[in-house]
Amino acid sequence: MLLNALLLASTASATCLHGLSKFKRQEPADGSVPISNFGYTGLQGPFNWASLGPENEACKIGKNQSPINIDASISKASEAPVVTIDSTQPVEFENLGTTIEVLVNGTTSFAGTDFRLKQFHIHTPSEHRVGEEYFPLEAHFVHEGVTDPNALAVIAVLFQLSANTSDPLLTSLQPHLSAIVNPGTKTPIESGLDFSNLIAHVQSTPLFQYTGSLTTPPCAEGLTFLVTEQPLAIDVTTFNEIKKIVKFNARYTQNSLGEENLITVAGVAGT
Amino acid sequence: MLLNALLLASTASATCLHGLSKFKRQEPADGSVPISNFGYTGLQGPFNWASLGPENEACKIGKNQSPINIDASISKASEAPVVTIDSTQPVEFENLGTTIEVLVNGTTSFAGTDFRLKQFHIHTPSEHRVGEEYFPLEAHFVHEGVTDPNALAVIAVLFQLSANTSDPLLTSLQPHLSAIVNPGTKTPIESGLDFSNLIAHVQSTPLFQYTGSLTTPPCAEGLTFLVTEQPLAIDVTTFNEIKKIVKFNARYTQNSLGEENLITVAGVAGT
Repeated sequence: MLLNALLLASTASATCLHGLSKFKRQEPADGSVPISNFGYTGLQGPFNWASLGPENEACKIGKNQSPINIDASISKASEAPVVTIDSTQPVEFENLGTTIEVLVNGTTSFAGTDFRLKQFHIHTPSEHRVGEEYFPLEAHFVHEGVTDPNALAVIAVLFQLSANTSDPLLTSLQPHLSAIVNPGTKTPIESGLDFSNLIAHVQSTPLFQYTGSLTTPPCAEGLTFLVTEQPLAIDVTTFNEIKKIVKFNARYTQNSLGEENLITVAGVAGT
Repeated sequence: MLLNALLLASTASATCLHGLSKFKRQEPADGSVPISNFGYTGLQGPFNWASLGPENEACKIGKNQSPINIDASISKASEAPVVTIDSTQPVEFENLGTTIEVLVNGTTSFAGTDFRLKQFHIHTPSEHRVGEEYFPLEAHFVHEGVTDPNALAVIAVLFQLSANTSDPLLTSLQPHLSAIVNPGTKTPIESGLDFSNLIAHVQSTPLFQYTGSLTTPPCAEGLTFLVTEQPLAIDVTTFNEIKKIVKFNARYTQNSLGEENLITVAGVAGT
C-alpha cells in the first residue's frame, strides 16, 4: 500500500526514477534536462528528503531502505540474470544535477520475471558497502517489470580504482563527459556504448540479492537489488573527471533490513 | 560550558582524541591498541553516537558540527601556520578499528597560539567536501594547545587520486600498512616518516579556517579546523590498500555552521 501510494504520488524529477513509466518527469520547454529537486547537503540532503514532498515519507520511516552495508545476512542470488543490451544503439547522456545518467534500452530476465532496462546512472562514492568497505563508484541499472511496471529492479555494479584501466563501458563513456559538465545539459552518443564486458560480469560473477528501496526520493520500497560482489575497474582519470562533475551523491548507509529507520533511531538516541 | 563538560566526561577510546591530554585512553594490559567503541554502521554509527555515552550529546544537538561542506561562507586563513615535524623521529602506527593512526610529535604555531601535534589519522572517503565535492582521503593532524590543552586544532589535508604518485608521507607510510591490517594491532616505524612536502604544502597553499567539532564521539565543539584547499596526491595502490583496511570512516556531512543539528532537522522533516 505504501509503495503504491508513493509510486502514484511521486514527483517527476527524482533521479533514480527517471525513465520509469510510473515516474514521468516534467520536460522543460527549452529542451534542457530537468534538474532534481533534492540534493546531498544540508536541507536538500537525505536527512530532510521527507520535507521535500509528502511522497517522500518512506525516506524517514521506511524499514527496508537502501543502500545498506552488505554483511553475512545478505544472500547471493541463486541464479544469474539474463541481460541483453545492444551496444550499438544510440543513447542519450544527461546531467541531472544529482547524477549523470544514460537513457538506454535493454532487457533483463531474473527469477521468472522480465524487466525492461530504462537507464543507468552513477553514484560516487558507492552507496552500498560490502563488509563495511565502500567503493569509489557504483552504477545503477534501473529496470521496470514488463508486465508490471511497478516491479522495479536495480542491478548495482561496483567499481574499484585501477591505475590505467577501465571497464569498456566507462572507456566508451569517458569522451562524452566533457559535454555534460553542467547540470541540465545532455549529449547524444550516436555510436553507442560498450556494455559487453559489464554484461558478462553481471551474468557470470556472484550477485548479492535483497529487497530494498530507491536510494533517492521518494525512497519507495519493494525494489529488488542485485549487487555485484566483485568490482569492475575504473581508471584514475575517468574517476577524477566523474567526481568533479558529480561531486558527491551517496545516500548514507541505512539500518539493517527490517530495523527501525535510522532517523527514528537518531531521534531517540541518548535519551 | 558544554565543551568543558564533554571534555571532562569523554570516554578514552574516541579515535579523533587519542593522544590528547584530556582524552586519555585505557591501554589494554596485553599491550595491544584499544579499539574504538563507536563505528560507522547501524547502531554503532553516527546516527546513534549519542546513545553510546552521555558525553556524546553534542553529536546529536551541536550546531557547529564537523565535517561540513566548505562553501563560499567559509573564509581562508589570513595567515599560514608554522609547522615543525621531525621526519627522522621514530613513530608508532596503530589500527584503532575506526581509523589508522600515527603517534607523532611536532609543533604548530597559528594565530598567536602554540600547539603540540599529538597524532595524525586517516579518513576515507574524505569527511570535508569542497564546493560539494568529496575526496578519496583526508588526513587529520590533531593538535592541543601548549598552554591550554583544551584548545584543539586539526589540520585537515585532502588527497586526490593519482595513477602512480603519492605524497612522500604516504610513500613512506605504505610499506607499514601490512603490519596493521587488523584492528588492535600496531607497529613501530623506527626510520620515521617524510613530512617535508606535506609541511611545505600546508604552509604555502590556501587553507580554509572555521570553528567546528571533533568528527568522532564526543563531537566536542570549539575546535579550530584548517583544511587544505588543494589536495595532495595518493596513488591507486596505496589508496586501495588503505581502503581495504579502514573500509569506511567518514561521518556524514553536517549542517551549515550555526544551523540546527541535522538529527533535529530529520526528526521534524515532513511533519
